[in-house]
Amino acid sequence: MDISALLTSAGINTTTCIVLFSLYSVLRKQPSLVNVYFGQKLAQARSKHHNHFRFDRLVPSASWIVKAWEASEDELCAVGGLDAVVFLRAVVFSIRVLTVASIICLFLVLPLNYFGKEMEHKQIPKEPLNVFTIGNVEQGSKWLWAHCLALYVISCCACLLLYFEYKHITKMRVAHISASLAYPSHFTVIVRAIPWVEEDSYSDTVTKFFTSFYAPSYLSHQMVYRSGTIQKLMTDAQKMYRIVKTSRMDQHCASTLMRCGFCGGPSTSFKILSDEPESSRGRSCFDGSDLRKKECGAALVFFRTRYAALVASEALQSPNPMQWVTDLAPEPHDIFWSNLSVPYRLLWIRRIAVIVASILFVIFFLLPVVFTQSLVHLDKLKKIFPFLKDIAQRKFVEQLITGYLPSVIFMLFLYIVPPIMMVFSTLEGAISRSRRKFSTCVKVTYFIIWNLFFAIILTEAALDHYQVSILNLGDPRNIPNLLAKAIPTTATFFITYVLTSGWASLSCELIQPFALICNLFYRYILRNKDYSTYGTYTFPYHTEVPRVLLFGLLGFTCSVLAPLILPFLLVYFVLAYLVYRNQILNVYVTEYESGGLYWPLVHNTTIFSLVLMQIIALGVFGLKKSPVASGFTVPLIICTLLFHEYCRKRFHPVFKKTPANIIIEMDREDEHCGRTEEIHLNLQSAYCQVNTSKALNVRNTVEHIDSESDCTENPNLGSLEDVENITPGKRAIQLPVSWVGHSHFEEPRVK
Amino acid sequence: MDISALLTSAGINTTTCIVLFSLYSVLRKQPSLVNVYFGQKLAQARSKHHNHFRFDRLVPSASWIVKAWEASEDELCAVGGLDAVVFLRAVVFSIRVLTVASIICLFLVLPLNYFGKEMEHKQIPKEPLNVFTIGNVEQGSKWLWAHCLALYVISCCACLLLYFEYKHITKMRVAHISASLAYPSHFTVIVRAIPWVEEDSYSDTVTKFFTSFYAPSYLSHQMVYRSGTIQKLMTDAQKMYRIVKTSRMDQHCASTLMRCGFCGGPSTSFKILSDEPESSRGRSCFDGSDLRKKECGAALVFFRTRYAALVASEALQSPNPMQWVTDLAPEPHDIFWSNLSVPYRLLWIRRIAVIVASILFVIFFLLPVVFTQSLVHLDKLKKIFPFLKDIAQRKFVEQLITGYLPSVIFMLFLYIVPPIMMVFSTLEGAISRSRRKFSTCVKVTYFIIWNLFFAIILTEAALDHYQVSILNLGDPRNIPNLLAKAIPTTATFFITYVLTSGWASLSCELIQPFALICNLFYRYILRNKDYSTYGTYTFPYHTEVPRVLLFGLLGFTCSVLAPLILPFLLVYFVLAYLVYRNQILNVYVTEYESGGLYWPLVHNTTIFSLVLMQIIALGVFGLKKSPVASGFTVPLIICTLLFHEYCRKRFHPVFKKTPANIIIEMDREDEHCGRTEEIHLNLQSAYCQVNTSKALNVRNTVEHIDSESDCTENPNLGSLEDVENITPGKRAIQLPVSWVGHSHFEEPRVK
Repeated sequence: MDISALLTSAGINTTTCIVLFSLYSVLRKQPSLVNVYFGQKLAQARSKHHNHFRFDRLVPSASWIVKAWEASEDELCAVGGLDAVVFLRAVVFSIRVLTVASIICLFLVLPLNYFGKEMEHKQIPKEPLNVFTIGNVEQGSKWLWAHCLALYVISCCACLLLYFEYKHITKMRVAHISASLAYPSHFTVIVRAIPWVEEDSYSDTVTKFFTSFYAPSYLSHQMVYRSGTIQKLMTDAQKMYRIVKTSRMDQHCASTLMRCGFCGGPSTSFKILSDEPESSRGRSCFDGSDLRKKECGAALVFFRTRYAALVASEALQSPNPMQWVTDLAPEPHDIFWSNLSVPYRLLWIRRIAVIVASILFVIFFLLPVVFTQSLVHLDKLKKIFPFLKDIAQRKFVEQLITGYLPSVIFMLFLYIVPPIMMVFSTLEGAISRSRRKFSTCVKVTYFIIWNLFFAIILTEAALDHYQVSILNLGDPRNIPNLLAKAIPTTATFFITYVLTSGWASLSCELIQPFALICNLFYRYILRNKDYSTYGTYTFPYHTEVPRVLLFGLLGFTCSVLAPLILPFLLVYFVLAYLVYRNQILNVYVTEYESGGLYWPLVHNTTIFSLVLMQIIALGVFGLKKSPVASGFTVPLIICTLLFHEYCRKRFHPVFKKTPANIIIEMDREDEHCGRTEEIHLNLQSAYCQVNTSKALNVRNTVEHIDSESDCTENPNLGSLEDVENITPGKRAIQLPVSWVGHSHFEEPRVK
Repeated sequence: MDISALLTSAGINTTTCIVLFSLYSVLRKQPSLVNVYFGQKLAQARSKHHNHFRFDRLVPSASWIVKAWEASEDELCAVGGLDAVVFLRAVVFSIRVLTVASIICLFLVLPLNYFGKEMEHKQIPKEPLNVFTIGNVEQGSKWLWAHCLALYVISCCACLLLYFEYKHITKMRVAHISASLAYPSHFTVIVRAIPWVEEDSYSDTVTKFFTSFYAPSYLSHQMVYRSGTIQKLMTDAQKMYRIVKTSRMDQHCASTLMRCGFCGGPSTSFKILSDEPESSRGRSCFDGSDLRKKECGAALVFFRTRYAALVASEALQSPNPMQWVTDLAPEPHDIFWSNLSVPYRLLWIRRIAVIVASILFVIFFLLPVVFTQSLVHLDKLKKIFPFLKDIAQRKFVEQLITGYLPSVIFMLFLYIVPPIMMVFSTLEGAISRSRRKFSTCVKVTYFIIWNLFFAIILTEAALDHYQVSILNLGDPRNIPNLLAKAIPTTATFFITYVLTSGWASLSCELIQPFALICNLFYRYILRNKDYSTYGTYTFPYHTEVPRVLLFGLLGFTCSVLAPLILPFLLVYFVLAYLVYRNQILNVYVTEYESGGLYWPLVHNTTIFSLVLMQIIALGVFGLKKSPVASGFTVPLIICTLLFHEYCRKRFHPVFKKTPANIIIEMDREDEHCGRTEEIHLNLQSAYCQVNTSKALNVRNTVEHIDSESDCTENPNLGSLEDVENITPGKRAIQLPVSWVGHSHFEEPRVK
């Protein structure tokens, strides 16, 4: 690939982006798509929108960019929660570091690479891309100090920024905890592995235990009930029977029935299973006298003060650590009920099974990755397997195979892997939805870094030097050299990957094709106008964070070796910044959040990328026979690792434990304001495994108590502009009324 | 080496052992050596012993064996603490497993090995030892199922025993905690990294913080003071001046001055720096008004209840995890004051430095080990380096070099390494002496297993197949095969190692040559008769636990492959059982203990040995081309690892955290008995960085409070028999009066 081809590709992608962005700016003005592009706003207010046609609805505009740009961090935090801020800060961090890297690498390293060898240069547009990589520098060149300097500048800059970001986010996390005054989760402890006593029910055992050991602070408790699959089927059957029985009576009220999209008449034979009956199902199923039999060995225990709950959650309760296991409870909407009823004694083996399964999954996926990557090198493959020559004879087929197929297959991977990892995380036994998403995020990150970075590079290396046995990869000392050889040659692939997958994914994110199609399907085929049944999702951190981290890794590792990738990455991150801000402000609802737990992951992955960059540079300097540059790189690696260890000591504990003095001060403030009683009263009904209406009440009360909340709820907004202009209030978990209390609600879309 | 040579060697070693054991039985009857062999008893009572000569003092007897055998576990726990019981249980565990292994391996595996190949057997005494190893079994033999069966039996038996031991020891640990009613450590929290506030002293900051956040339970606190080297030198100089000034007045009381051993007259020019003046030094040094300047950012904070202290120790105190770091305090005699004044912010880097230094140390020691081991294979070396032929021409020199030198060098290592590791652990910043010893123990275990097991085997492998490049060792897949090849051939060395080093070390342990020489030196050269200045030591867990673990590892890994080692190991462990019981009962004092913390180490190392045994067997089965045996070994490895994970979940947390309900019940009992006030009163003076007399008072009061203590203290025992027959009381830390409060006391001997 030469420069002109790269520029052509960039041009095509830029045009596509601009077209799609414009399309978005038009689509978002269509009132019929308000629930696709303003899910977040809709969650705040049910708008009555008018369908008056206006001409400017069809004119593309950049107003959304301006709005996304103008939103302050506080607004974002209020709308998207701390996680959204952390995610955007990770993007901003990447922009900052890559700007510095671009400046030093494009103006210092790139010319050195270009004039690294004495050779006749063609016109720049005709130059192949590898003339701009470090591969073009002569062995033993004295100019390698510049690469080493760039390495130092990038590393120091990244570490400094990381330090201040970590510090800031730790502060934000602490502020987030101390600002959340009336959260029931602070007063609640999840107890699992309650021992079975012959004569007592679980509930009695819990009462006895906590009145015995935590008498002054124990308030009450609430058992968790089993909800097995067979029971679900049984109650579903009961419900179906009821629906069929009552459907005749319902015939006159067609509005609650779905209209048949083809004939237009009311259909009597089926009914949308909206979420509401679930509550009645739950009630009918749990109101009976057999509640006690359905108790499982887990309970939510409420305490009088936050500090008491914190203390109880951190202590080892019993000499048998497999009994009375306590954890701080998640928020009511975050809790993952079905995993709470899993017997605790099985969790450790489940976790091991999931780890093993994940590793096998990653290894299994190496095969398609290697296959795909080998398609890029069809010319090399043809040498190894001559029969391929016939297939790849036509120019068009070859271009298709080498140019698009690999990227398309990777994109497909990116869509298949997260749901599978989500299933793994569910099986692992996460007790909160945010934890499950975080755990998925970690798994996807590992997967992507391994399968989309190392696997590609190693395949490249194996194909490039196929005379070298692939078995030699096992020797750890070869790895830096291998990486050093492979990175400059794979840089081309990575550049096209950033152009196609990166930029395209942003357009895709903006247009929301899946939601759009669903919307059209519901609207024009099913003729259903109730927005609440579809269209709002939580932010897919488990797919977006790994993607951003992968691009960060590409940026770091390629920066010194093949600096041409940097401008493209920089454009990607700037676009990502705008797009994600817009999406967080308008599209995604925030039902639950992890409280900034994603930052340690971002930090650790960035340190990993930094160290990898330095190790690869060490390998390159070794290959180029520059002992000075190698010698200077070693202390850099050591310092980076020490910095990481320091940050782990200095900041990470706050993400694992809650600081006691903050909790104590919050308790004091409660007592001072005299709202303790009110909180205790609401606590009893805050967590509801099945009952909707109760949960709704709690939600309202909680928001009422949260004195700092100034969320303006305006139920009768006039037009679309009003929807857009809703001022986000101070952070409060916003959720559509119809969702409140649907505790068994699963992720609607796992992207 | 053939069987007869082995038996000769065993005979010689047995004779030596018997002679030394008899010598010990005589020596221990000498009243002048009572402080060498009855340090523990002396610690309980100062005996007035009579020097009447009796003939039976010169007759060897086995009475000590009977006494050691008869002591119950409760007695041992009372005398040596939980750690001693754990150590002896580790020995008993080894005896049990090795008995099972011996039965199945000697009666099933050994004959199969012997008749494994069709060959002409010589007379058994002339057979070389490798005829008895698995190396003698034919490739693809059908009899390998027997080895696999043995593997299963040994693994299952070991896992079962490990499980019950872990369960029992966890119970004992819990009982130990709940039995220690009046321990000041339960009420005390060590706070480090107290932030420096400009206007306040550290002490004021602590008061403010704890009265603010722990008002109901905070009792008082005590600052830790700096005691730097320069200050020590200054005060030492002051003291010297005082001694010189007052020595003229002291001339008439010669008993407190040392008598010159050569002339017999009282020496006026120098005085033994006994430990007592330290207290006055401390007082003179800390009584001044500059106390505040000497405060360092650490304090002991006392709480009203154990539970409050536990809670405060486990919580994260501040949003900055590098400030207000809390830990449960060690016992007053266990605390390591000088490390408390190390700034907390330096600890993490110290720890990293120590880890790096330890790794370098281990690698550095690989060279002498390889050198030594190569001496054993002088014949092979001669082939590689022909010039060695001249040196090793003489039969005697060759025998010396191959037979004794390696073992002697290893013995020397065993004496050099623990003190160095102890220094490392001190630098690492352990805040208690028991922790420091435990940390040393872990380091020495790693060192020994790496340098005395893997290094030897790998050297063996490298020398045996020196055509195979040593660089191939880096490939992880080769390691099982390498081990499989090397273990049967190194078995001979390990057998002689057990015979010489193992058995000899026990005799050495019994005779206590170092203490004996010191005793004689003090008595006959320095003519000093005060026993308290020398002769009592704490049990050297950091040298003995690794030794026992190494022999356990040898037992497991050699059992199936070269079963001849088993009887020798069994004899070693039985002797060790008797000797260590005797030593714990009579010699070592128990000043501090870790509360059974050594068991998780023993458990983990044993699991490691088991898995290693299985992996090596897998390699052997692979080499012998027995797919069935290999196939059956894989699930065994998986099951062993799962078992380990289960134990880690089920038992290990109790060794990291104290169960809250036990602590709460102890608090309740205190309140019920009305002794809370008394405990609070004593608490204030329990920890004393410098003052002796106070500490002594506390000690006495504590023992007085400890109502379950029935330790009989008889200050006027009539004779040596009385010393021997002191009944050990219920567990209470026994220590010589002169040591009480010598907080800076360092390990007198680091063996």
